[in-house]
Amino acid sequence: MNLQDAQELDAADPLAPLRELFSLPEGVIYLDGNSLGAMPRATLERVARAVEGEWGKGLISSWNTAGWMDLPQRVGDKIAQLIGAKPGEVVATDSTSVNLYKVLHCASQLQLTDAPSKRIILTEIDNFPTDLYIAQSVCEQLGFSLRAVKGEDIEAAITNEVAIVMLTHTNYRTGRIHNMPHITARAHVHGALTVWDLAHSAGAMEVDLHAVHADFAIGCGYKYLNGGPGAPAFVWMHPRHASRARQPLSGWLGHAKPFDFSHDYAPASGITRFMCGTPPILSLTALDCGLDTLLAALPHGGMAALRKKSVALTEMFIAQVESRCAGFDLTLVSPRESAQRGSQVSFTHPTQGYAIIQALIARGVVDDFRAPDILRFGFTPLYTRYEDVWQAIEALLAVLQSREYLKPEFQQRKAVT
Amino acid sequence: MNLQDAQELDAADPLAPLRELFSLPEGVIYLDGNSLGAMPRATLERVARAVEGEWGKGLISSWNTAGWMDLPQRVGDKIAQLIGAKPGEVVATDSTSVNLYKVLHCASQLQLTDAPSKRIILTEIDNFPTDLYIAQSVCEQLGFSLRAVKGEDIEAAITNEVAIVMLTHTNYRTGRIHNMPHITARAHVHGALTVWDLAHSAGAMEVDLHAVHADFAIGCGYKYLNGGPGAPAFVWMHPRHASRARQPLSGWLGHAKPFDFSHDYAPASGITRFMCGTPPILSLTALDCGLDTLLAALPHGGMAALRKKSVALTEMFIAQVESRCAGFDLTLVSPRESAQRGSQVSFTHPTQGYAIIQALIARGVVDDFRAPDILRFGFTPLYTRYEDVWQAIEALLAVLQSREYLKPEFQQRKAVT
Repeated sequence: MNLQDAQELDAADPLAPLRELFSLPEGVIYLDGNSLGAMPRATLERVARAVEGEWGKGLISSWNTAGWMDLPQRVGDKIAQLIGAKPGEVVATDSTSVNLYKVLHCASQLQLTDAPSKRIILTEIDNFPTDLYIAQSVCEQLGFSLRAVKGEDIEAAITNEVAIVMLTHTNYRTGRIHNMPHITARAHVHGALTVWDLAHSAGAMEVDLHAVHADFAIGCGYKYLNGGPGAPAFVWMHPRHASRARQPLSGWLGHAKPFDFSHDYAPASGITRFMCGTPPILSLTALDCGLDTLLAALPHGGMAALRKKSVALTEMFIAQVESRCAGFDLTLVSPRESAQRGSQVSFTHPTQGYAIIQALIARGVVDDFRAPDILRFGFTPLYTRYEDVWQAIEALLAVLQSREYLKPEFQQRKAVT
Repeated sequence: MNLQDAQELDAADPLAPLRELFSLPEGVIYLDGNSLGAMPRATLERVARAVEGEWGKGLISSWNTAGWMDLPQRVGDKIAQLIGAKPGEVVATDSTSVNLYKVLHCASQLQLTDAPSKRIILTEIDNFPTDLYIAQSVCEQLGFSLRAVKGEDIEAAITNEVAIVMLTHTNYRTGRIHNMPHITARAHVHGALTVWDLAHSAGAMEVDLHAVHADFAIGCGYKYLNGGPGAPAFVWMHPRHASRARQPLSGWLGHAKPFDFSHDYAPASGITRFMCGTPPILSLTALDCGLDTLLAALPHGGMAALRKKSVALTEMFIAQVESRCAGFDLTLVSPRESAQRGSQVSFTHPTQGYAIIQALIARGVVDDFRAPDILRFGFTPLYTRYEDVWQAIEALLAVLQSREYLKPEFQQRKAVT
């Protein structure tokens, strides 16, 4: 394979024109959309309109006239299309961590009523840390224990003691996808509820929450949904829980009638009860635009077409690293089987992972490092070209051969890695 | 008094030039900055730069290079200057409701250790509903009871049973200011902690949390701080609680070392432990700009000068309504004594409050209604002119005399009032 082969793949790619929907800086190969999605070209104008037109000119009336009031629900309806949820079942609000707290607390309370002897929340030890930290808090408050096992041991660990199975569908370190249908079914057989974090799945692959009869899900707005830095997150629950679900962050926008200003909390119907305070409208507007950009891609073969391209990109990257960069101590830690792999590829390096990533970034190939030893490469199919994969390999090979990662400026840690 | 008198007051007002820092629509008299502050002229460019430059061009590297990582702390340091807090003691993040949950849960846990027999959270029955709802949730979870009394009965209700006094400093309905020094001192004498919601105070009047030895405070970014719709809120605690304070929303950005990705939660030092998930950077950038705009006013005599003008505006409004609109069933419910009154004036009308406000808005005088019977008029001293007060009275008188509020379009309720 050579550069021309990659360029021919791009020329034949029916999704290639979607890249034009994004603004990507010249000279940068961006393989970090799994951390922060790229900016859609339409976002600047959309946000500017929200600032100048809706806020500046419309002022307080924009809660009605610009639709700010139901923006969390309208954005939620767009996310619903990506995750197998129905209209009215998703709201976009708060952060992933805050939403996880809500649903985990809620699911725990349901189990305290339905199966009070079950006091285990089961998760993966290498789940994203914020999920572990939030679960530790809920456990401490409600008298549960967190049982954290290796990813491959999850299914076996689902026993009758388990109250809740809480997993990130696609692991942030390795990109390994948990088998959502099997795990959810097994959880239900054992009387457990499921909480799925879709941070690295929503917008990157097909997810069908209803098909698997999942219980609760949350996810991130700033990765594959391209909502901008710190974009609001989302939350979903299966409607079978709607009448009984209570969540502890009982703010006024989750109230049945917030503008009655009544003294007593009464939850809104459905997912709106998972709202809390006033959402950040400017950031939510950017997320709305990110979703419009993603949804514009769906007529080109739907999420299946995006997923197909994502798999082709990651397959190509793995094959090229393993053939061209052999002998440089890089070890694949993502699944080799594409059905088990998300839209990222991770390698470990025993000692120089951080510095190699810094050297790549200096060459304009943006990816990231996850302590202690993981080099992560994300391949967002909306805007990543086969040529980008080729050029990234060229850069990686040059960094490894030159050993330029040993330079002091690449060895020194930055605040955000 | 006549229009010319009002215009002469504006001509002599040393703060009058500050209005130029804001973009206010032509033909609108905006008396609702207590609900949503107006847009600073600088905000559009600042947010556009964050979207296009920091996100679009800088991408993930902007967490380091554009200072996104410590933006909650840097914005917090600006808020600190307005509330008598010190640098490093405030973070801007999440919503007011979410932050209230954190501090109220935290304060309750402290009291469960220090004074386990105290199980009362004392508040005002007419506190903003979200504060009541969040307190109801914390009470239910931790075995406390919420005791809600009339505002004027708060001081007497602070007894040895009370664990926490939770108050909004300036009441959202009446604008009445609680006596923070007296209440805090009395709370401490009785072994209670204080949680102050500064939503209607921060940026509108002098607040000195250290001078009164307060315990915890939270507040809103989108009212007098002009941070834009749903701007992130803020949270403060007195450093004497820093070593022991734990809050339940233990997300990764409140971790001591978030980029170590360790499996166990360990809180950051100081107020950073009140962070949870990734904050909405675009909305936080707009808040940063709102604060810069407010801080630019401080060389013009400081918060004392802003407060002095605020008092003059509200005094003028009360006097003019009572003299010129007498006989129309409007009753002042804000304190007549200016020292007890925030930067708003509220009247009740027995039956037509909502419709009168709608008719005023139709005439370009923007204010709001709070169920069941309150007409609220906010006077942000940064951008409100004496002439605006005069014109608002003219419009109010015309609405009342014409009875145009009886028109069907003014009688019909909108989603957001």
